[in-house]
Amino acid sequence: MEKNAQAMANRSCIIRLSRYKNALNRLKSLNFVRVFSDNLADAAGVTAAQVRKDFSLFGITGNRRGGYKVDDLSDQLNKILGKDQLQEVVVIGVGNIGRALLHYPGFDRSGISIAAGFDIDPAKYHPDGQPPVLPLEQLAEAIRARDVRLAILAVPDYAAQQVLELTLSAGIKGVLNFAPICLKAPGGCVVTNINLETELENLIYFVNATSDRN
Amino acid sequence: MEKNAQAMANRSCIIRLSRYKNALNRLKSLNFVRVFSDNLADAAGVTAAQVRKDFSLFGITGNRRGGYKVDDLSDQLNKILGKDQLQEVVVIGVGNIGRALLHYPGFDRSGISIAAGFDIDPAKYHPDGQPPVLPLEQLAEAIRARDVRLAILAVPDYAAQQVLELTLSAGIKGVLNFAPICLKAPGGCVVTNINLETELENLIYFVNATSDRN
Repeated sequence: MEKNAQAMANRSCIIRLSRYKNALNRLKSLNFVRVFSDNLADAAGVTAAQVRKDFSLFGITGNRRGGYKVDDLSDQLNKILGKDQLQEVVVIGVGNIGRALLHYPGFDRSGISIAAGFDIDPAKYHPDGQPPVLPLEQLAEAIRARDVRLAILAVPDYAAQQVLELTLSAGIKGVLNFAPICLKAPGGCVVTNINLETELENLIYFVNATSDRN
Repeated sequence: MEKNAQAMANRSCIIRLSRYKNALNRLKSLNFVRVFSDNLADAAGVTAAQVRKDFSLFGITGNRRGGYKVDDLSDQLNKILGKDQLQEVVVIGVGNIGRALLHYPGFDRSGISIAAGFDIDPAKYHPDGQPPVLPLEQLAEAIRARDVRLAILAVPDYAAQQVLELTLSAGIKGVLNFAPICLKAPGGCVVTNINLETELENLIYFVNATSDRN
């Protein structure tokens, strides 16, 4: 049944599950024991019906009177999202964005650990750092030694496709790409592109469209 | 007609327009004069029919034999995306991520200029910096003086809602939010949430789902 759910769940659904899980973590820290679909709907900016639909896809049930137990629900969501085990990630490209991500405190909190950073510029190497920054040539070895499956790409656009191929041949299965170019995922690998310029352009368009209407 | 198009265009369509525009910029730098919907489709990872549909929504037409003129098409897309004028942006919160964004070279290239950074920590103030980092109390004044309408939020989650309200009351119309909390946009304002943990969680889920299937 879970296989089916995985096949049916799409990106939007998984992003909503992450939001419910983040809301639950906040409720846990406030010592909440129970939560209702309406509460989670408010926190994630969706309808309560959507929350129940998402949960039913994964066989998670609450009850109308008592809602969901915060602890149980949190465990179930963590398991679905693969957060029941520590996830190691490498950062490739230690420029402005890469360096910020190496030291981003939010990852620790979510059970995500940055194993190392990699660059081609010797001035950026820092093998004793926490996390260390290593030469790009050591990427494949480091990935295999620690069985890392996830990489964040923060390299210039012209280097991105080549670095992606290097990364995948080293065994990486999932890539979060910050290079301002839309990378294509070959089979057996998942690539998510985050393009900061595109996001800002999108914002500019809708701000202008809204102002024009006023 | 343009009003209709603006009403009909959704976020996905605008993100595709940004991708076409970025591909065009690359083609321009290679001295291309003409481009076909198939080329743009490949660059943006969509079908050629989708490209033509997106363009027709904004009254952009090419012809089957000659395709589109790169320069004309680029101008039209820049106008739609509000890129025909320099867009100033403020960055609020100068931690790891905020500092990286203050100095992100990709923005310059896209006609986006970071006007200033703001923080509440005096240790981060740097009024003579390029761009300057100023006390948060000066935000409203700076925004009004320069008619800035866009802000990037890179503050901790517990501060995000309060800073959002401050920002909007100072006249900001569009916010790109990096705080790991899903902020809601009141009427007349556009908020885009980029949650790095959620993006990584999403990736972890799909990597696990793909591996399970093999």
